[in-house]
Amino acid sequence: MAKNLTSRSDDYSKWYNELVVKADLADNSGVRGCMVIKPYGFAIWEKMQAELDRMFKETGHQNAYFPLFIPKSYFSKEASHVDGFAKECAVVTHYRLKNDEEGGGVIVDPDAKLEEELIVRPTSETIIWDTYRKWIQSYRDLPILVNQWANVVRWEMRTRLFLRTAEFLWQEGHTAHATEAEAITEAEQMMNVYADFAQNFMAMPVIRGLKTESERFAGALETYSIEALMQDGKALQAGTSHFLGQNFAKAFDVKFADKEGKLDHVWATSWGVSTRLMGALIMTHSDDKGLVLPPNLAPDQVVIVPIYRNDEQLAAASEVAEKLMADLRSRGIRVKFDNRDTHKPGWKFNEYELKGVPVRIAIGPKDVENGTVEVARRDLLTKELMPVDGAAEAIEGLMDEIQSKLYEKAVDYRTEHTTTVESYEEFKQVLEEKGGFILAHWDGTAETEEQVKNETKATIRCIPLVGDDSPGKCMVTGKPSARRALFAKAY
Amino acid sequence: MAKNLTSRSDDYSKWYNELVVKADLADNSGVRGCMVIKPYGFAIWEKMQAELDRMFKETGHQNAYFPLFIPKSYFSKEASHVDGFAKECAVVTHYRLKNDEEGGGVIVDPDAKLEEELIVRPTSETIIWDTYRKWIQSYRDLPILVNQWANVVRWEMRTRLFLRTAEFLWQEGHTAHATEAEAITEAEQMMNVYADFAQNFMAMPVIRGLKTESERFAGALETYSIEALMQDGKALQAGTSHFLGQNFAKAFDVKFADKEGKLDHVWATSWGVSTRLMGALIMTHSDDKGLVLPPNLAPDQVVIVPIYRNDEQLAAASEVAEKLMADLRSRGIRVKFDNRDTHKPGWKFNEYELKGVPVRIAIGPKDVENGTVEVARRDLLTKELMPVDGAAEAIEGLMDEIQSKLYEKAVDYRTEHTTTVESYEEFKQVLEEKGGFILAHWDGTAETEEQVKNETKATIRCIPLVGDDSPGKCMVTGKPSARRALFAKAY
Repeated sequence: MAKNLTSRSDDYSKWYNELVVKADLADNSGVRGCMVIKPYGFAIWEKMQAELDRMFKETGHQNAYFPLFIPKSYFSKEASHVDGFAKECAVVTHYRLKNDEEGGGVIVDPDAKLEEELIVRPTSETIIWDTYRKWIQSYRDLPILVNQWANVVRWEMRTRLFLRTAEFLWQEGHTAHATEAEAITEAEQMMNVYADFAQNFMAMPVIRGLKTESERFAGALETYSIEALMQDGKALQAGTSHFLGQNFAKAFDVKFADKEGKLDHVWATSWGVSTRLMGALIMTHSDDKGLVLPPNLAPDQVVIVPIYRNDEQLAAASEVAEKLMADLRSRGIRVKFDNRDTHKPGWKFNEYELKGVPVRIAIGPKDVENGTVEVARRDLLTKELMPVDGAAEAIEGLMDEIQSKLYEKAVDYRTEHTTTVESYEEFKQVLEEKGGFILAHWDGTAETEEQVKNETKATIRCIPLVGDDSPGKCMVTGKPSARRALFAKAY
Repeated sequence: MAKNLTSRSDDYSKWYNELVVKADLADNSGVRGCMVIKPYGFAIWEKMQAELDRMFKETGHQNAYFPLFIPKSYFSKEASHVDGFAKECAVVTHYRLKNDEEGGGVIVDPDAKLEEELIVRPTSETIIWDTYRKWIQSYRDLPILVNQWANVVRWEMRTRLFLRTAEFLWQEGHTAHATEAEAITEAEQMMNVYADFAQNFMAMPVIRGLKTESERFAGALETYSIEALMQDGKALQAGTSHFLGQNFAKAFDVKFADKEGKLDHVWATSWGVSTRLMGALIMTHSDDKGLVLPPNLAPDQVVIVPIYRNDEQLAAASEVAEKLMADLRSRGIRVKFDNRDTHKPGWKFNEYELKGVPVRIAIGPKDVENGTVEVARRDLLTKELMPVDGAAEAIEGLMDEIQSKLYEKAVDYRTEHTTTVESYEEFKQVLEEKGGFILAHWDGTAETEEQVKNETKATIRCIPLVGDDSPGKCMVTGKPSARRALFAKAY
């Protein structure tokens, strides 16, 4: 229960790990680096999926599904992609097991070796562009606006639930266009879709920007990202959208005939967000008592707990609860009535605090007598008595208010923890004492970026697309800087 | 286009294969046995998923997610399960590739060999019951009613799009109960959910029944199935629900304390349907012109095609179309307006016939003048002119009518192709000349079942749960038979 949760100030990392498990979001499995997403955690992910899927479809995208396995040779086709991706991955080499004749259970059948090894997809550009070659002949076949919801595997050595796991769930959009401009517009559009989702549903403010060359996706000409700030002052990359140029079309020989019949390679984008967003959601809002969920993503937005000593009192409380629930549901609010007799009200209060249900309503004998209900807000940990008449309307209003408040609080935190610095000394001091985002001038070279990373562990999260764009001098080398870059230590 | 489709009477199998590809449902990929599900095919699968997911949730189930990989040793824990499942599967043996120092691209790094091989899940009982051991201590933790939507891999040697692929998509429910009776009730309930879905959404009648011992799921005490009949007289198993007894709980040591504190093993079920349903849907309704979709699962229920010679005529037809679309959408009907100028109306008519859109509306200059629209039904290939006033209401009615008609037609086909036989001679004759379901007495032994299979290729699809349950004598051995079994050649 909540009382056993390590406090954030004691050990943020430990707090996170405990919270994920205790709030029934996810757990480690018997398979190294692979997580089990528990029903409560999965219900939140389903809400995220549903909203994102709606936004993708509203922007003209369709879902499809491509194979889990990718022949090894596909990775060698796009030169920079193979360096970035094909190394730490799960390799299928055999297709059969057999009984061990010496009695050791089942063993891999040495006669069932694949001619070419298959890689469990770490991302699907290669298999998808191999398919697009068959789908695209003419400008009439373009654009292709396809997304897939899938599991992917990257063999990470150090894993943490949601933030970095060997297998994770994500969506990956893969689009094909007739022109460079259209592909760039698409990549920017999807960055904006992600940012809107983060802000309006996760209540998580994000900075939109461009990745530096060394932080770009393997095979991309430009990577757009959204960057969020966690409560411990570390940044988290929450989504990326890549302009891939003609790299994959060239690697997989995908050409189209334009209206004049002239052949050219197709232009591409890809973009994705993953179950990592669950980690971002947790670390943006939650507190020492447990999870805090924005109403727009909470599986249960309201929970009603009856307080009673006997069946008569339970019946009376239930009658009030049923009416209130019907009213709340007619307003589109997700509400649960927890009348289990296996657990005490105090246990339930702790449980729903831990699980981040936005509003908890208690109905006791006094409430029934007085026509009131006790309404507790998870975000502020406040309680108030209100008349049961009009309570549904008030709670409907609370949903919006809590959603906004969580966002404002996160914006305030970020504002307080975003520092503009003029020197490398100041940079190092702020990074050590305060953390957070740091805006500093940088000379645009990979060498300086690398030096800062080695000396401070801070990386350039992005070159922001909005905000102060005045030029200056690099904090490290004094060379010219076009505009400030956004630095932080990151997840 | 449709004119190139092989007819069903010429070659049913070829017709199916061509239809799946030409109607943009799925295609083979560069990876042996793995399919690409194209956007149009995936949109149908998404409709199936949405309805099934709703039905699962209405019966109290929640979704979760378990690892893709299963350690090899897990399969050895449930003795009969390993024989049935662990053999033809994808085996991960390594976790890293590296650049070939001799310049041969990327190769598997021999230093990155896993201590224990991982199997890509062919089904998830083992990894899930290994997890349930941690979730279940007391009767308070039961029942667990969990489902997952996932990809699974079974290394099939001969594959066909949707019907049998190495990788496929499915859902697998895995439930845990305190009593045997409750688990049996659950297994039966899910068979009924599947049957309702097949009938009400796929417009596909099914026979509910029990599998014989030799056809049971590996590790189950009882397998319930729903069996459908395809247009070529072959049966297709469309869904299964298994009562697993305490087998997996014993294999993975999952016990619970009852109210008195007494420990007992947990009772289990599992149940699943897969993208195979896409094959069943296609083969139940489609014709020589292409796909025929029941309105309840059609991504587009209505398509409107304008017919025009100039911009003025297009504008006039569009005005009528926009109003009609608004009216149709307000009735919850999914409608698409195809005003592309890259394709002629005749091409579009063929295209939507091939893709099985239930209703096609054409609006030409004469229609605009006369206040009419031409409404074509895909199922009957009939056309009628109707006044545009009241057209939306009429089309709303057509949706229900087409849905019902498709179901009735499939029931009629099945009735005509279900034969009750009294002798093995008659059995063989019907099987050869007419095909379909055959109800015949069987002595209940695996030997007789095997003999019939070897001699005729027909298998026992199920022991039906309803219908004629009078006893008789086995058609092969003359020994007593408790009731007729349902035989057929099957996919």
